[in-house]
Amino acid sequence: MSEIRKHYFLDEYCIIASERGKRPNDFKVTNVISEVSDIVSGCFFCNGNESKTPPATAVYKQGRVFIDTETKRENGWDVRCFPNLFPAVSPHTITPDTSLSANLASGYGFHEIIVESPKHGMSLSGLNDDKMKLLMRVYRDRVTFYQAQEAIEFVSLFKNQGKSAGASLSHTHTQLVALPTVPPALKRELAAIKNAAKSASVCPYCEIVSAESESVRLLARNDHFIAIAPYYSIAPFEIWILPVEHASHIREFDDSALDSLALILKEMLARLDTVLSNPPYNYMFHQMVDEDYHFNLRIQPALATIAGFEKNTGIYINSVVPEQVGTFI
Amino acid sequence: MSEIRKHYFLDEYCIIASERGKRPNDFKVTNVISEVSDIVSGCFFCNGNESKTPPATAVYKQGRVFIDTETKRENGWDVRCFPNLFPAVSPHTITPDTSLSANLASGYGFHEIIVESPKHGMSLSGLNDDKMKLLMRVYRDRVTFYQAQEAIEFVSLFKNQGKSAGASLSHTHTQLVALPTVPPALKRELAAIKNAAKSASVCPYCEIVSAESESVRLLARNDHFIAIAPYYSIAPFEIWILPVEHASHIREFDDSALDSLALILKEMLARLDTVLSNPPYNYMFHQMVDEDYHFNLRIQPALATIAGFEKNTGIYINSVVPEQVGTFI
Repeated sequence: MSEIRKHYFLDEYCIIASERGKRPNDFKVTNVISEVSDIVSGCFFCNGNESKTPPATAVYKQGRVFIDTETKRENGWDVRCFPNLFPAVSPHTITPDTSLSANLASGYGFHEIIVESPKHGMSLSGLNDDKMKLLMRVYRDRVTFYQAQEAIEFVSLFKNQGKSAGASLSHTHTQLVALPTVPPALKRELAAIKNAAKSASVCPYCEIVSAESESVRLLARNDHFIAIAPYYSIAPFEIWILPVEHASHIREFDDSALDSLALILKEMLARLDTVLSNPPYNYMFHQMVDEDYHFNLRIQPALATIAGFEKNTGIYINSVVPEQVGTFI
Repeated sequence: MSEIRKHYFLDEYCIIASERGKRPNDFKVTNVISEVSDIVSGCFFCNGNESKTPPATAVYKQGRVFIDTETKRENGWDVRCFPNLFPAVSPHTITPDTSLSANLASGYGFHEIIVESPKHGMSLSGLNDDKMKLLMRVYRDRVTFYQAQEAIEFVSLFKNQGKSAGASLSHTHTQLVALPTVPPALKRELAAIKNAAKSASVCPYCEIVSAESESVRLLARNDHFIAIAPYYSIAPFEIWILPVEHASHIREFDDSALDSLALILKEMLARLDTVLSNPPYNYMFHQMVDEDYHFNLRIQPALATIAGFEKNTGIYINSVVPEQVGTFI
């Protein structure tokens, strides 16, 4: 029997199609198309090939931060951040008209690549704990930096791992896209949160944290975060990571909270990689510069196709029951 | 230079990333993954293999409509409709509680397969005009039939062509999913239409028809329909087919209008198949039983991955400029 489930607090549905009920092994064949054509020797993102990309905006190395110039590129780094050579948005047309419509029309924004490891073939779950903790600091730095730029209203931070999750290069990397407007989908979510908070005097995500901490959908918990398989899951093996104490944005996390985030994210990726044999996945930082929003990091293995039904209705069919995720991974 | 474009009348954006500007040939490599594992001899959807599927709910054959029984299956058909063996929703739990929440919880609904041709390897653009016209009548029949079923509020009609568009079998087929609720995304669109109609006294889709009929984005026009590459295109080579005279739902089309729909849809699919070498695609019927809605059929070639950025923001990056689609296809 299937179930049409409503989102916790939004007017959105997903279908948990348990009659199609799949187990982790049913997804392994999909992994074949997660391979990306692999150019090891000439990989743009490898240590030593820095000249194949634009100068880095931030190079994390030996506990310090450097900046490349046209003539001098740093190597021997831990994490390297630089502008995307093929940007979706770009900063060159901000002047003289700084209105929103001009910024939209000109595709104003920033598009940065964050290479999380100099080693080709490394996966995030293979990073040691210190490197994963460093990465969270890099995320906090770069998001905060772009959030402060002129005419930037929203910074999207996300990772595409594997070809069927949208990665065009196999060397592990995260992307950051800074936009001149808050995406309407997030505006609507924030409005719903403010509405719920007004009537119930409590943040709906705080309610999720409270309810799911006691549920079969709890996957892990540490000092500052919980990881859950959400009741409303639009992707198989979807995972949400939420701060237990209300916080809106990564810039609010101190080093201790960032360390917790690093460890719970690494644990979740490692559990997915083990059980699903390094599946393609996306993860997305849902956050806003508004104290009513509640930070959440969503991991969605890319194991199902977003097809005609989803494109027609906005309702996602998920063949893995969220209550069973904890028994699988 | 990229452009962040707003939807005609909804608060939605897409990014036309012309710096990534791709031409049809850039997409051909993608077609490799459009192949679905091909079992010709045992194909469930081929003429002669009717016993491998549930009894047909409607068999179109020699100008008449038949129904299978458990013991007697029709063959020699033109179009065959039957329940999906692996349904996303199913009708078995309607009684005794017929409330919406019970229907949602039980995954109430219908999921039907419509096989458009008995011939394995046939594509829709390869159907002759009469068969394509018949198919539109089948669509009208089946949607109207399910729309009238108890507790059904919305019927989704869509096609997944090719593996990366979500087809799990290569034999051409359409799917119909009947739901106990109108999808929230369509409810929101209808509310926006009613709002716009109230202030401007005109349907926003009628305005699109009027404006795009004179634009570089017009791809084709016949007695009853236009086909356009919409200004707001979320997929490369996206096409919308719209009735010139306001109509809400396929059941309102007379045979003459249905014939026009068949011919313009076939022409668009043929042009895509020729230029993009039989790309994977989805098409979706956007329609509602509400006189304010304006029917539109959307064709979206599945040539780009819906990845982390889209999943984070709801904003789609499209590397093909809508104004150039008409020069390509």
